[in-house]
Amino acid sequence: MQISQRAENMPSSPIRKLAKYADAAKRNGIHVYHLNIGQPDIKTPECALEAVKHIDRSILEYSPSQGYKGLRTKMVSYYANYGIDLSPDEIIITTGGSEAVMFAYMACLNPGDEIIVTDPSYANYMAFAISCGAVVKSVKTSIEDGFKLPPMEKFEEQITEKTKAILICNPNNPTGYLYSKKEMLRLRDLVKKYNLYLFSDEVYREFIYTKAPYISACHLEGIEENVVLIDSVSKRYSECGIRIGALITKNKAVREAVMKFCQARLSPPLIGQIIAEASLSTPQEYMDEVYDEYLSRRNFLINGLNKIPGVYSPTPMGAFYTMVQLPVDDAEKFCMWCLTDFSYEGQTVMMAPGSGFYTDPAEGRNQVRMAYVLNKEDLGKALLVLAKALEEYNRQSQATD
Amino acid sequence: MQISQRAENMPSSPIRKLAKYADAAKRNGIHVYHLNIGQPDIKTPECALEAVKHIDRSILEYSPSQGYKGLRTKMVSYYANYGIDLSPDEIIITTGGSEAVMFAYMACLNPGDEIIVTDPSYANYMAFAISCGAVVKSVKTSIEDGFKLPPMEKFEEQITEKTKAILICNPNNPTGYLYSKKEMLRLRDLVKKYNLYLFSDEVYREFIYTKAPYISACHLEGIEENVVLIDSVSKRYSECGIRIGALITKNKAVREAVMKFCQARLSPPLIGQIIAEASLSTPQEYMDEVYDEYLSRRNFLINGLNKIPGVYSPTPMGAFYTMVQLPVDDAEKFCMWCLTDFSYEGQTVMMAPGSGFYTDPAEGRNQVRMAYVLNKEDLGKALLVLAKALEEYNRQSQATD
Repeated sequence: MQISQRAENMPSSPIRKLAKYADAAKRNGIHVYHLNIGQPDIKTPECALEAVKHIDRSILEYSPSQGYKGLRTKMVSYYANYGIDLSPDEIIITTGGSEAVMFAYMACLNPGDEIIVTDPSYANYMAFAISCGAVVKSVKTSIEDGFKLPPMEKFEEQITEKTKAILICNPNNPTGYLYSKKEMLRLRDLVKKYNLYLFSDEVYREFIYTKAPYISACHLEGIEENVVLIDSVSKRYSECGIRIGALITKNKAVREAVMKFCQARLSPPLIGQIIAEASLSTPQEYMDEVYDEYLSRRNFLINGLNKIPGVYSPTPMGAFYTMVQLPVDDAEKFCMWCLTDFSYEGQTVMMAPGSGFYTDPAEGRNQVRMAYVLNKEDLGKALLVLAKALEEYNRQSQATD
Repeated sequence: MQISQRAENMPSSPIRKLAKYADAAKRNGIHVYHLNIGQPDIKTPECALEAVKHIDRSILEYSPSQGYKGLRTKMVSYYANYGIDLSPDEIIITTGGSEAVMFAYMACLNPGDEIIVTDPSYANYMAFAISCGAVVKSVKTSIEDGFKLPPMEKFEEQITEKTKAILICNPNNPTGYLYSKKEMLRLRDLVKKYNLYLFSDEVYREFIYTKAPYISACHLEGIEENVVLIDSVSKRYSECGIRIGALITKNKAVREAVMKFCQARLSPPLIGQIIAEASLSTPQEYMDEVYDEYLSRRNFLINGLNKIPGVYSPTPMGAFYTMVQLPVDDAEKFCMWCLTDFSYEGQTVMMAPGSGFYTDPAEGRNQVRMAYVLNKEDLGKALLVLAKALEEYNRQSQATD
C-alpha cells in the first residue's frame, strides 16, 4: 500500500527517537531529568481548574467553527492590554496554535510556494509546510550572535517569485530570542516591499525577561493586511492539553479562507474554550509568580550552563527555552548516550538535539535545546548530571581516539 | 495578498449560506425548526458529564500524540463487542472524526491521487480532499434505489492509475443507507483487486434500525492492510463538542505515517479524552433509550414526509439523516425562501439543500437532507410547517408562471 510522499518527507522528531530510550532508562530505575520538552510543570490557574468543575451543560455540543463569541470578546480585552486593537470578528479560535499555523499555510500558500523562517526554528513549522506542499527556506541565525535577526539582505537572498510569507516566532522557540523594535521595523519594510505575509507566532509574550519592549507584528503600521498572528493559551496558563489557540488577522479575505478550513473540521474543543475563557481572568499574582519563577530558573540555568567547561548558552530574553552549545561533535549521539550508557547517582538528562530545529540537519550538530520547565532544585541536579556526563563522554571518546 | 487555490476551491457549505437568513428570521420572532444539522438534542450520558466535574489534575498538560493508553485500551473492549479485534496500538486518537479523515488522506494520498466516494456524501470528505490536493471522483447512488451501492462496474469505470482509495460512510450520512453484507463483500473484492485503501467512516454504528447485520470494513477478510476505520464518539454519546475521534488500522506503515501528522499537532484534546473514556462506561439503558428515541423519530418523520403531496423519502436504515425529494425545482432556493419569505403561525423550517452533498452540484437539486435531531413534538410541527410552505411556494410559483 502506498504511503504518501508528504508522510515520507515529514521530519520525525529527534525527541521522539530518544523517547523509547528514556523509557528504557526509567525502567532500569534511572531518574531522567526532562530538559527536552515544552510542557510546563507550572500549575494551571485555579480559576481554569474551577471552571471545568462548574460546567453546567447537559449536552456537550459543537461550538461555532470560529469559536465562542464570549471567548473571542474576552480576548479582545486581553490583546488591548498589549496595545493590539482587535474586534471579536478578527479572532478565529483554533485547536491549539498548531492548527492556527496549519490554517494560515492552507489559506495563504499554494503547493510549491515558499516561506522563509529563521534557522533554528520550531520543527513543526517545517512539518506543517510539508503537509501543505509549501517549501521552507531559511535564513540562518547563529548562537555566536545570540540568534539575532540577520541583515535584511540575507532574507532578500532567499526571496524568489514563489516566496509568499515570512514566519517568525517572537519571543522565539527554540532560542529565547526577542526581536528588537529595530528588527521588527526592518521586517515590516521587507514584508511591505515584497508584499509578503508575516505569520507571527507570539505565544510566549508573557515571558519576556528584559526591559526591552514587546513588539508584536500587530504593532507594525502599514502591513496590517499582511500580518497573521498565531497564538495559544497553552503556555501562558500552563494548559497545553486543552488545545485552544487562535489565528488573528485584519485581512478579511484571509479570515474567510481560513473559515472554510474551520468549517470543514466543524469546531474547536468546547471544554477547552470554557477553560480558556476562564483563564483570561487569571489574577495578576499568578502571572507574576509564574514570571518570577521562569526568570529565576533562566538565570540559574544559564549561569550554571556557562560554568560547565566547553558549554555555552546565550541568555534567552524570553520564552522558556535556550539553545546550548556542547563540547561534543554530535549532540544527537551524546543525547542518546546519556539515556543508554550513562547515569550519575541513578540520574540522567534528556535534551532535544539541536539539529532537529534546523532546516539543514547538518547545522546545530553540537547544540541542544533545553526547556527550563523543571524547578530549580531539579535544574541544579540536571546541571550536575550534565557536567558529569560531558566529562565521562569526552574521557571515553579520548580513550577510543 | 494571495489566497490559496485550495481555499478558493473549498466548498462553502450551503447550510452556512442559509445560516444568516435563519438568524434574521429568529430576530424577526420566527421560530425556526432546525432539520439541517447533525447536532443531536439528546443529553450527553451522565457518567460523561460527571467525569468532567471530577477531573482531579493540577496541570492540564499535553497528552500523548496517539492519545491516552487508558482510552485506547477501553476502546479495544468496545470494538470487541462489535466483533472487531484490535490492540490499543492499532488505535490512534484524533481530534474528532474530522481529523481522522484528514490524516488518512494526508498519510495515504499524494496530490493528484484519486479517491472514490458514493454520491451523495458528507460534504467535508470533499473539503479534506481539497486540503490535501486529492481528487474526489464519485459513483452515483439514487434516491429511487434507496441509495444502495451501485454495481461494481460503476466503480471500475471511475478507477484509473491514480485511484488510491474508496471512502464509504456506513451507516451513511446523508442518506441513512446501511450497506448489506453482499455489498460489503463486493467492495472487499474491488479493494483487493485494485489494491486500494478502504476508508470506512462508521461513526453511526449504534444507530441501525433494521434487522440487517452491521458489517464493518474491519470484518472483511483479506483486506486487513487496506482498511482504515474512521470513528468518533461524537454522535453515539451526544458529545460532538469534545472533539474525540479515532483512526484505526492494522496497517503499521499507515499508522507510522499518521503518527507523524499526530506529532506535528502535538496532542488530541486532554479533557475530551477523559470524557470519552468515561463515556465508554455508559449504561446500556441510556444507549437503548437513545436508540428507541431515534427509531421512533425516524418512523414518525418518514411516515409524515411521505404523506405530504409530492414529497418522497426512502426509509433510512441507520444514522439520523434522510435525503428527501421535494416537489420543487430548486431546493436551495426553496430552503432560502422558507427562511426569508415564509412563516406559518410564527414558525418555519431550516433544511440542508441536497446539492451540497453531491460532487456535481447539478445533482440533488430537488433534494434536501433532514436530520431527525428534534423531538417528535417538534418534528410534527416541522412537518406541518413544511407542508404549508410547499403549498404556498408552489402556489406562488404557479401564479408567477
